[in-house]
Amino acid sequence: MWVSLAGAVLCCVVMFVINWWAALMTNVIVLGLFIYVSYKKPDVNWGSSTQALTYHQALTHTLHLSGVEDHIKNFRPQCLVMTGYPNSRPALLDLVHSFTKNVGLMICGHIRTGYRRPNFKELSTDQARYQRWLLKNDTKAFYSPVFAEDMRQGAQYLLQAAGLGRLKPNTLVMGFKNDWRDGDMMNVETYISMIHESFDYQFGAVILRLKEGLDVSHIQGQDDLLSSQEKSSGMKDVIVSIDTSKDSDVDSSKPSSKATSLQNSPAMQKEDEERKATTQPLLKKDKKSPTVPLNVSDQRLLEASQQFQKKQGKGTVDVWWLFDDGGLTLLIPYLLTNKKRWKDCKIRVFIGGKINRIDHDRRAMATLLSKFRIDFSDITVLGDINTKPKKEHVSAFEEMIEPYRLKEDDMEQEAAEKLKDSEPWRITDNELELYRAKTNRQIRLNELLKEHSSTANLIVMSLPLARKGGVSSAMYMAWLEVLSKDLPPILLVRGNHQSVLTFYS
Amino acid sequence: MWVSLAGAVLCCVVMFVINWWAALMTNVIVLGLFIYVSYKKPDVNWGSSTQALTYHQALTHTLHLSGVEDHIKNFRPQCLVMTGYPNSRPALLDLVHSFTKNVGLMICGHIRTGYRRPNFKELSTDQARYQRWLLKNDTKAFYSPVFAEDMRQGAQYLLQAAGLGRLKPNTLVMGFKNDWRDGDMMNVETYISMIHESFDYQFGAVILRLKEGLDVSHIQGQDDLLSSQEKSSGMKDVIVSIDTSKDSDVDSSKPSSKATSLQNSPAMQKEDEERKATTQPLLKKDKKSPTVPLNVSDQRLLEASQQFQKKQGKGTVDVWWLFDDGGLTLLIPYLLTNKKRWKDCKIRVFIGGKINRIDHDRRAMATLLSKFRIDFSDITVLGDINTKPKKEHVSAFEEMIEPYRLKEDDMEQEAAEKLKDSEPWRITDNELELYRAKTNRQIRLNELLKEHSSTANLIVMSLPLARKGGVSSAMYMAWLEVLSKDLPPILLVRGNHQSVLTFYS
Repeated sequence: MWVSLAGAVLCCVVMFVINWWAALMTNVIVLGLFIYVSYKKPDVNWGSSTQALTYHQALTHTLHLSGVEDHIKNFRPQCLVMTGYPNSRPALLDLVHSFTKNVGLMICGHIRTGYRRPNFKELSTDQARYQRWLLKNDTKAFYSPVFAEDMRQGAQYLLQAAGLGRLKPNTLVMGFKNDWRDGDMMNVETYISMIHESFDYQFGAVILRLKEGLDVSHIQGQDDLLSSQEKSSGMKDVIVSIDTSKDSDVDSSKPSSKATSLQNSPAMQKEDEERKATTQPLLKKDKKSPTVPLNVSDQRLLEASQQFQKKQGKGTVDVWWLFDDGGLTLLIPYLLTNKKRWKDCKIRVFIGGKINRIDHDRRAMATLLSKFRIDFSDITVLGDINTKPKKEHVSAFEEMIEPYRLKEDDMEQEAAEKLKDSEPWRITDNELELYRAKTNRQIRLNELLKEHSSTANLIVMSLPLARKGGVSSAMYMAWLEVLSKDLPPILLVRGNHQSVLTFYS
Repeated sequence: MWVSLAGAVLCCVVMFVINWWAALMTNVIVLGLFIYVSYKKPDVNWGSSTQALTYHQALTHTLHLSGVEDHIKNFRPQCLVMTGYPNSRPALLDLVHSFTKNVGLMICGHIRTGYRRPNFKELSTDQARYQRWLLKNDTKAFYSPVFAEDMRQGAQYLLQAAGLGRLKPNTLVMGFKNDWRDGDMMNVETYISMIHESFDYQFGAVILRLKEGLDVSHIQGQDDLLSSQEKSSGMKDVIVSIDTSKDSDVDSSKPSSKATSLQNSPAMQKEDEERKATTQPLLKKDKKSPTVPLNVSDQRLLEASQQFQKKQGKGTVDVWWLFDDGGLTLLIPYLLTNKKRWKDCKIRVFIGGKINRIDHDRRAMATLLSKFRIDFSDITVLGDINTKPKKEHVSAFEEMIEPYRLKEDDMEQEAAEKLKDSEPWRITDNELELYRAKTNRQIRLNELLKEHSSTANLIVMSLPLARKGGVSSAMYMAWLEVLSKDLPPILLVRGNHQSVLTFYS
């Protein structure tokens, strides 16, 4: 090997000795061709030795990486995104991809549940298919489906074992469960426990909420739509082609009911949804099928789901930094505004503070942010976070949680304990009293958010925490609901208290 | 970026124009230095931008790999090895590393069980520590621990979610459970179910058995020993330094009992073993501690566990290819003998055949192997596989399985069914009768193995299969036991029926 290298070098030397300028020219041309080819990446099967080389490089670099020591400057948000099928929650996929692309790892987690074991040969074909779909859509992400008995187990699989060496996720991203009041409350219990577990495993947690919802998988043929929209961007009359497969009658007859019941429970699809999804025209774009106009809510959902694919224009990303969680709440908007699509957006920072030292706090924050080299347009110190929320909002909250209360004072102790055991998500009167201040704070924050950030392109906000076991799932879910309702796209973020920003350069 | 590249190229050109031979010399020297540095890899922290680059490269290449299509020539054994702590089963680690190094992925899986959840911060520190240990020992492998309620769940975690994109294991490697007759038979049930599950998930399965056992984690301070042995290789009086931590009294007083009870149940350590292992002097080599001689069985175990670290010298690797499983049984010895340590070993192939056409079979096999470009020294066609084994061996087998039989004929039907429900691993009389031929075959194969391969450095053999649910765990375990007992190191291999060899070049 070394002999041939020496020979090659000698050849080059002789080449230069004979005719130096011709040799130089040749070298430059060859180099140029090489750069051109590796830059263009033409769609040619280069044969198996190149493929083997790719494998070898991937393995070597990943191994090499596991020998690299951690450094705060090399922190990257490595996201495990609970997308379900990668094409079913486009808004979640696009937004996360915007801040992980070329920066950090992104894994699309998908938990399949059911009592009957699926055929694993089909599963792996499916996996390959969706992985190709991701790459075809220029999404640099891995699709990682698991099959588990229940959601909780499946989340464990992904949180513990996904990734390889240092390429391991450190942030869990989920969609907000818009439909939490409809289905079985045990699903909410599972959902909340996933948040708690992510903290146990030293993950950060991020929750995205669009008021329209996230899950578009019940709308047949949105892939066809996506591709046609790309061509004639900006068209207003959204129509969609319905796949005339065996499922189409079911879907077109009652799409809105499906929309409300299914939308937005992250990756919580059962077997039958899966079978339906497989019949979706995933990669067949040349299909001719009759087109049927969508109903209004689906139209709005579809528009909302594509909002992060467009250029964001001039606007703001509002950061509500209420707790110090290591800095993830600031890092994500910073990474976002570094991207082409978001580069015209300004970062506005909102923090809490005492009313009599607002000016001092603002200056301290401005100094900190410029030390972090984060470009902000405005800092607002809110002195009135802890004032009482409006009466009607408080009573609306109480009305909302009414069905989920245990009301142990109205029944005998034994019956109350029994009910609490069988339905652990119920809110006790004791708890309601204990956390009244925290409840009021969430309601008040929602008022402030509506006042200050109702025109933002994206709100990034600290996720309120609840002690595991101390606060019931229904209570916590209600907090998240009341905090984030009727707002522009909102990202609730909580880092794992690992510092991710530094001002030492 | 492109401007600066153009500038750099222009600089080079001008350099050559001014004085071409000096410029050439400079370039060669710079190139030489670069190659030297990247070849030597000096232990210097190059700073965070290089680390960031490593991350970026690992991610990009792994992503790029997931776009590469499968090809039979690019099949590599990507092994998930159930090592427990990476330093507790050195023989397993060394052997698997011998055929995956620079070729395929190797993940050291470790399933921790227990009812109490461990502190995950400590777990991740532990993980980093063992990962460093692996790299320090030049083992190109990833350490991937998971915490699960039981072994079965933990195996699911690793089989389903370990790896990233195409860097996903496709072969499960386990140690043989030498102590299966001692502990709870439900452990055997779990062990066997892991083999079955690996096939469900399209994995191949490989089981390594050394007659001395594999697990050396009960021998305190074997790391110190390993490092001292490396210096004075070939010494005979094996002594070991016992760590004077709080556990040492327990271990030195009854090491042999621990040896028999613990050794070789792959990765089946409970919490208390783990805590002990943490107190082992993992990376502290400068420690001074009193040395105590080992007992005989531990000495032999320790010697056996290091046999794959040495050069193998002239010897044979015997391949017993009894079923066509896609070719993994042939690929592994081929990869092994390509390595430095094993390159003096010859491959001998044993196949079954009819007694009246032995010559024809041998010639057909020789043609096939040379088409596969596999270098073999000898092919033996065994015509007497299906003859009856010796009486005393059959009766020894029957004696061995005696405690595990259900004996439903001697009791009432109801009682038998009840017992079968509570202890599903029991062997029914019906089953024993049904599989008598298969049982005899395993006993006969062991006789043949002893006759032909008792001097081999390594035996690679097709793993007999058992229908899930059809054959009880005790029966299957007994087959494996009787097939592989009292032999040189034996590797039982079963591919996932994916073709891994091709003669198209």
